[in-house]
Amino acid sequence: MIDVRKDFPILEKEVYGKRLVYLDSAATTQKPSCVINAISEFYRSGNSNIHRGVHYLSEVSSERYEKAREKVSDFIGARNSSEVVFTAGTTDSINQVACSLRPVLAGNEVLITGVEHHSNIVPWQMAGATLKAIQMDDDCNVLIDSMEITDRTKLVAINHASNVLGSVNDIKEITEIAKDHDVPVLVDAAQSVQHVPIDVKDVDCDFLAFSGHKMYAGTGVGVLYVSERFNDLLPARGGGGMVDKVTLEKTTYLDPPQRYEAGTPNIAGAISMGVAVDYVQNIGMDKIKEHEHEVYSYARERLLEMDGVTVYGNTDEMCGAISFNIEGVHHYDAGLIMDKMGIAVRTGHHCAQPLMRSLGIEGTVRASFALYSTKEDADMLVEGIEKVRVLHA
Amino acid sequence: MIDVRKDFPILEKEVYGKRLVYLDSAATTQKPSCVINAISEFYRSGNSNIHRGVHYLSEVSSERYEKAREKVSDFIGARNSSEVVFTAGTTDSINQVACSLRPVLAGNEVLITGVEHHSNIVPWQMAGATLKAIQMDDDCNVLIDSMEITDRTKLVAINHASNVLGSVNDIKEITEIAKDHDVPVLVDAAQSVQHVPIDVKDVDCDFLAFSGHKMYAGTGVGVLYVSERFNDLLPARGGGGMVDKVTLEKTTYLDPPQRYEAGTPNIAGAISMGVAVDYVQNIGMDKIKEHEHEVYSYARERLLEMDGVTVYGNTDEMCGAISFNIEGVHHYDAGLIMDKMGIAVRTGHHCAQPLMRSLGIEGTVRASFALYSTKEDADMLVEGIEKVRVLHA
Repeated sequence: MIDVRKDFPILEKEVYGKRLVYLDSAATTQKPSCVINAISEFYRSGNSNIHRGVHYLSEVSSERYEKAREKVSDFIGARNSSEVVFTAGTTDSINQVACSLRPVLAGNEVLITGVEHHSNIVPWQMAGATLKAIQMDDDCNVLIDSMEITDRTKLVAINHASNVLGSVNDIKEITEIAKDHDVPVLVDAAQSVQHVPIDVKDVDCDFLAFSGHKMYAGTGVGVLYVSERFNDLLPARGGGGMVDKVTLEKTTYLDPPQRYEAGTPNIAGAISMGVAVDYVQNIGMDKIKEHEHEVYSYARERLLEMDGVTVYGNTDEMCGAISFNIEGVHHYDAGLIMDKMGIAVRTGHHCAQPLMRSLGIEGTVRASFALYSTKEDADMLVEGIEKVRVLHA
Repeated sequence: MIDVRKDFPILEKEVYGKRLVYLDSAATTQKPSCVINAISEFYRSGNSNIHRGVHYLSEVSSERYEKAREKVSDFIGARNSSEVVFTAGTTDSINQVACSLRPVLAGNEVLITGVEHHSNIVPWQMAGATLKAIQMDDDCNVLIDSMEITDRTKLVAINHASNVLGSVNDIKEITEIAKDHDVPVLVDAAQSVQHVPIDVKDVDCDFLAFSGHKMYAGTGVGVLYVSERFNDLLPARGGGGMVDKVTLEKTTYLDPPQRYEAGTPNIAGAISMGVAVDYVQNIGMDKIKEHEHEVYSYARERLLEMDGVTVYGNTDEMCGAISFNIEGVHHYDAGLIMDKMGIAVRTGHHCAQPLMRSLGIEGTVRASFALYSTKEDADMLVEGIEKVRVLHA
């Protein structure tokens, strides 16, 4: 087991006089001191806009920004750091792809799963595509063998791990099938990249999206990996920093990654992602996976043992989130009671209404984990559920 | 004169053993300690995702986020804080409008000026609009009387202050003319909102865009003011937090501002904007304007007195940036020499290639000012130019 709690100042906080039991890491992870300090330090002594300056501060911040890109590139196993585009977050990343691919997608189909976050649903609808979902079994696991790719399928867009169930999809197998039909693949890795090692070369996807704030970095920054196969994609946004020549009649664009980064980016945010990558790589993603698996499995088993508690989802590989309901108690009420015990869980549809409809429910209580989560947190969760049941008996 | 330099830790920095003379505030302003500390403090003790949580931390951060929206709303004189949308920055704000208005703009015309930043040019081209520029005089001032609005003009998109010349446009008069023709107006206020008071009710524009990082807040956050007249605009991005009901067939959207904020926003960034607004309002925008005017005018006069220095732009109201060239010296070389003296200026086309073409040049040296700028900074700039001339004599 790894012990990193001392690195996270917020975990020492008390809530209503109780120890904070933070089980909402799928919404956003807490930040280690090294990340917080790097952001402060940037603003205190290194702040400048990047790229277009000749002066010292501008060179320093440009260098830090590009170094962060290299770190992220290395973290996901990209062939080249030019495949790493800094965005405002996962949602922004996916919207950019939807916008760029609009000419191809409009009037055609995007194949998703029934377990997608709204951010991997709505952008495709906005691009004018019809959505088809791969069939699922009773535990809402994707039935890969039933994947139907037709002439109208122009993209496969799937999550790596569900933000609700914690179930992990075999993105490599799905990508292989899509590639056999020459259909590009986007992977929403918002709920996986902080939990399990990912190598985009191995998966061979075309796009991969994730958020900084869900992997220990600051808010307002994310990544869109764009395979070099898509080097000449039409950019989704226009502005400074991504153009070659601009006239009122016509504009030509730079090559990636600048091509896809219009305007001043979230410089401090990107730098914080670089520091977050260093942080998790120093611990080791394999170790993190192992530690989290132990805590996650322990929590899940304890919940499964409880009477009157329904735990959703069930498959071989799971990480991050566990969703459940307590018999006779509205998820919102359960969350409120646990909050008063210092236990932070999330309740509701978790931006996955189609999945809720498949489960025949309106929402769940979701406990979600990160590298600083412990078995004690899981025990507190069980205690919280027991309290909820007593109060609602 | 106001004295706030002690509030900005980076201004105590030395560069190459020299006092940092930061004259690149139009690229990004430095941050006061209160802003830097607020960001740290958020991550250290308040960090959570917003809106959808029932737990304590989530409520605290939601409250801070919405409070920041109210502060920004008050700062620009919006009727209602629901008119204030947090974005990733000015470029992002303008791109969102371009995307939302695409059905109207495609095949039609957007009226701009010849003094626009690329971020107020390229998004309209991407939306399929043809760009027309209002005529200018020899100093590149917009000739408002020559504004030609036709049946094909679907938007007027103008900067409030030029990022190159510092010249301020009479956005109220321009808006009045546009309104007479029922054409909506977008104001790019990236280079003005930190220098002069703005009241969107008074200007009566439909959209106003600006960046946090240019007004003393963090990077990766900005604002799009959307007049309540456009409450039912199609959102540009889809995802969590902006939807009402989602099925694979159809999605319905929430009302503004949520409607235009897909995904987890830059929470720390938005909070930092609220703190930055407090900071400038505690000093007083009128006082800031007065102080900056004194420094700006002093700097401009000193440059105008110098032999062999061409200063671009000339009009009654100016702020922020001064662009110039030194006879016989490439702007880039001038910038490099000044850098070694600790003077941070920017060189190049400043993301305004069409303006450079009008001026018949490839680029300028740009010195730009903020509330912490002083006459000593201006004196150092003059000293820097003299050194450049000596070295190139």
